[in-house]
Amino acid sequence: MGADARFFPVGTPPTLGEATAIAGGELRGDPDRLVRGAGPLQEATGEEISFLDNRRYAKLLPATRAGCVVLSADLLGGLPEGCAAIVAPRVYLGFARILARLHPAPTPSAGIHPSAVVDPTAIIGDGVEIGPLAVIGARAEIGAGCLIGPAAVIGEGVKLGEGCRIGAHASLSHCIAGRLVVLHPGARVGQEGFGFAVTPQGDFETMPQLGRVLLGDRVEIGANACVDRGSQGDTVLGPGTRLDNLVQVAHNVRTGQSCVLVAQVGLAGSTTLGNSVQMGGQAGTAGHLSIGDGAQIGAQSGVMGDVEPGARIVGSPAWPARETLRAFATLRRLAQKPG
Amino acid sequence: MGADARFFPVGTPPTLGEATAIAGGELRGDPDRLVRGAGPLQEATGEEISFLDNRRYAKLLPATRAGCVVLSADLLGGLPEGCAAIVAPRVYLGFARILARLHPAPTPSAGIHPSAVVDPTAIIGDGVEIGPLAVIGARAEIGAGCLIGPAAVIGEGVKLGEGCRIGAHASLSHCIAGRLVVLHPGARVGQEGFGFAVTPQGDFETMPQLGRVLLGDRVEIGANACVDRGSQGDTVLGPGTRLDNLVQVAHNVRTGQSCVLVAQVGLAGSTTLGNSVQMGGQAGTAGHLSIGDGAQIGAQSGVMGDVEPGARIVGSPAWPARETLRAFATLRRLAQKPG
Amino acid sequence: MGADARFFPVGTPPTLGEATAIAGGELRGDPDRLVRGAGPLQEATGEEISFLDNRRYAKLLPATRAGCVVLSADLLGGLPEGCAAIVAPRVYLGFARILARLHPAPTPSAGIHPSAVVDPTAIIGDGVEIGPLAVIGARAEIGAGCLIGPAAVIGEGVKLGEGCRIGAHASLSHCIAGRLVVLHPGARVGQEGFGFAVTPQGDFETMPQLGRVLLGDRVEIGANACVDRGSQGDTVLGPGTRLDNLVQVAHNVRTGQSCVLVAQVGLAGSTTLGNSVQMGGQAGTAGHLSIGDGAQIGAQSGVMGDVEPGARIVGSPAWPARETLRAFATLRRLAQKPG
Repeated sequence: MGADARFFPVGTPPTLGEATAIAGGELRGDPDRLVRGAGPLQEATGEEISFLDNRRYAKLLPATRAGCVVLSADLLGGLPEGCAAIVAPRVYLGFARILARLHPAPTPSAGIHPSAVVDPTAIIGDGVEIGPLAVIGARAEIGAGCLIGPAAVIGEGVKLGEGCRIGAHASLSHCIAGRLVVLHPGARVGQEGFGFAVTPQGDFETMPQLGRVLLGDRVEIGANACVDRGSQGDTVLGPGTRLDNLVQVAHNVRTGQSCVLVAQVGLAGSTTLGNSVQMGGQAGTAGHLSIGDGAQIGAQSGVMGDVEPGARIVGSPAWPARETLRAFATLRRLAQKPG
Repeated sequence: MGADARFFPVGTPPTLGEATAIAGGELRGDPDRLVRGAGPLQEATGEEISFLDNRRYAKLLPATRAGCVVLSADLLGGLPEGCAAIVAPRVYLGFARILARLHPAPTPSAGIHPSAVVDPTAIIGDGVEIGPLAVIGARAEIGAGCLIGPAAVIGEGVKLGEGCRIGAHASLSHCIAGRLVVLHPGARVGQEGFGFAVTPQGDFETMPQLGRVLLGDRVEIGANACVDRGSQGDTVLGPGTRLDNLVQVAHNVRTGQSCVLVAQVGLAGSTTLGNSVQMGGQAGTAGHLSIGDGAQIGAQSGVMGDVEPGARIVGSPAWPARETLRAFATLRRLAQKPG
Repeated sequence: MGADARFFPVGTPPTLGEATAIAGGELRGDPDRLVRGAGPLQEATGEEISFLDNRRYAKLLPATRAGCVVLSADLLGGLPEGCAAIVAPRVYLGFARILARLHPAPTPSAGIHPSAVVDPTAIIGDGVEIGPLAVIGARAEIGAGCLIGPAAVIGEGVKLGEGCRIGAHASLSHCIAGRLVVLHPGARVGQEGFGFAVTPQGDFETMPQLGRVLLGDRVEIGANACVDRGSQGDTVLGPGTRLDNLVQVAHNVRTGQSCVLVAQVGLAGSTTLGNSVQMGGQAGTAGHLSIGDGAQIGAQSGVMGDVEPGARIVGSPAWPARETLRAFATLRRLAQKPG
């Protein structure tokens, strides 16, 4: 059972030969056969393609009724008779590209919906689609080929590079974004950060937040996630960095490229992440920390200090993964002893 | 002090006799007396009704000035003189139903606000109310009696069963919903899940997310909560399941019926919940897990493995509640000993 | 490098004399010199002002090229030649006020955007700005000088005091707000809380939520944060209380004045906070608790019981900070010993 045509329009189906070229692989099977859909191993039918990149699921292979499976050479043994194979060096990537050929992402239909409110001083690039009830503020610049979803709000002076995709109800202000940036519905970018001074009477006065948000090329920000602008200086997300839903990024945070922040992660103010840092769901960091390139931080961890490049840390407070796991094992053993 | 008439319009007040019938109970008092409002035991006045279903609060009963109290038979002893009682087998449910009679939930006023943007190919059922500045996409189907709030966005092809209630600024795409589904303001349903492949250059490419969200009858989704659509296959919330505010449900999660996810819970991709699973606030699960029917997972727990039906687990990492509590007691004792 | 003029329009620059008066300090330098911007010590230029209130950064002072630095008297020693100084009793507050003079917060431009939908029964005060595609419900009252952002939704009967600022896509219902209240984009106030009764068949029926949200003067609510209305009685945030992004406040919570809830904090139903309670990011409380004045609750803590005024607690479950830290130290030591 492939994608529901109600939501995913079907284009011209590729042949297995085309699919193989797209995946950068090698075909075992009839290159002229058509691929009409895709599905998991257990569900794909004879006109559909599937993939196998995890040895744990290899046992499902012999029973698949998929017409073709993308896999690595060492798993070919389990292929049932009559099932074609695309042997690819990067199975998951190859499969992603075949899916993108089968069901291309929606492309903008150039034009501004009559219900949208576009300031006359905004600069709208070629081929831009602006959806119903979207708002584009004064002096905003929308790069060629951007898709602004329904009811999105682009603030004054905001600049989007080419090919950005802004979801329904997302809002941006005080932001300069690169190319191909994606905001999912309800994402919040550029609002005032959380900063204030205390008066002698104990009241709070807002510290003016005078920085911006700079989003590198291909940054993606999940649904209802929040990225505050800098207080002084900027909040920066490096190229390719991806934030899942409901992530919080405070003012003056800076990430390198290709960081991955899973859902509900929180980064406190002025913390810096290197390149390719990964944080599991619901993890958090204190402010003003430095997290090195390639560090991996487990789900629900609480990071209280700087983290070395490449370190794997876990727990709240977060310690090196090996240490945390040993500590928990010790604790469990003690709890099972008589007091 | 009852509900503020500014926000909760008052209908015709029921008599105690009617209230008793609604609650499915037995009245001790004058059935013709009117009930004009409701309030907590300490605040309700002589024309108002209250309830008592928690023995812990029984000491408040003798001093109440409420005109009537809904309670169970064993608590009747503390009832002050002149106070009527409705003895009901399910006190809380009975009281809920009396409140719903006193202050009925707003019903749709059939009609489409002139500022709404409704695609001409959308199918709008009888008696539907579409609020100001709402957007209904192409080929969407809105069941009879639905209430679409102001500035809500219903995406292309989305199907809502009868009597759904969609809050302000909520968005749905790629979703088929049953009857009486409720989305609170800012809820996000059907957006792209968090999935991508890595190129040889270390860049990320989005794995097309080609599934849907299926919402069973009476599902409720809290304010600013997020439910991503499936990658392949669907994300499914079973009938009656309720999500509190800011909950995250990743792609391909499936829940049974009547699950309860308290605020800020996060479920990682492809995890399956049975029926009547309950998760406390800020708890999370890893992906690809199976959580059995009736499992109870404590607030802030981190679930790293499958959970048996009926299990009570607590902690991060989550262990059986008894074990976690013993571990913490042990730890505290050790910390108090001299090193 | 000061604030980007693309986003932060520059007014008439103050003189150092004026800046000193605003900061309530004492000037060492030429009172007629102009201040054209502000920046961190390492980046500020000769026409810009900076500040130093943290002894940890005192080593940066001798090398600054800022034209003037706001600081406390004891740090004057490190000031480089030619650099003016404003010696202020409250450095951070003084600097905040100078910034607010340099780049004043946007003030409302009185008027209702033609695309906004304002119910004819709403009462709109003097000087109110209502942005594009905002919705103002029946009988709502918008105080003088309020700024209602683009696509914000103000529900029926909602009352805002003077000078409130409501961000893009924020929504309010069932709410009475004081003066100078700020909602950041996507904040949700007044929606139905999470309450329901169970039927004999195991289904859930919503407990009608018949209370309100009362917001004290100067309350601020972060982007995509949620404050549910009371079930019976009200949810109350005391004057000056500030919620960061993605915070969850359940029904019937009450806070005193000047509480600070950092991002992703969650308060369960009916919990009461005194004055000046501070909670770190991702911390949570169980319901029906009482947290005393001035209590400080660490990031990611899980509060399971009442908290004394002034207590400092940390951990999940949360214990007195000293105890939690000792427990973790003990655990780590044990984990390092041979089993």
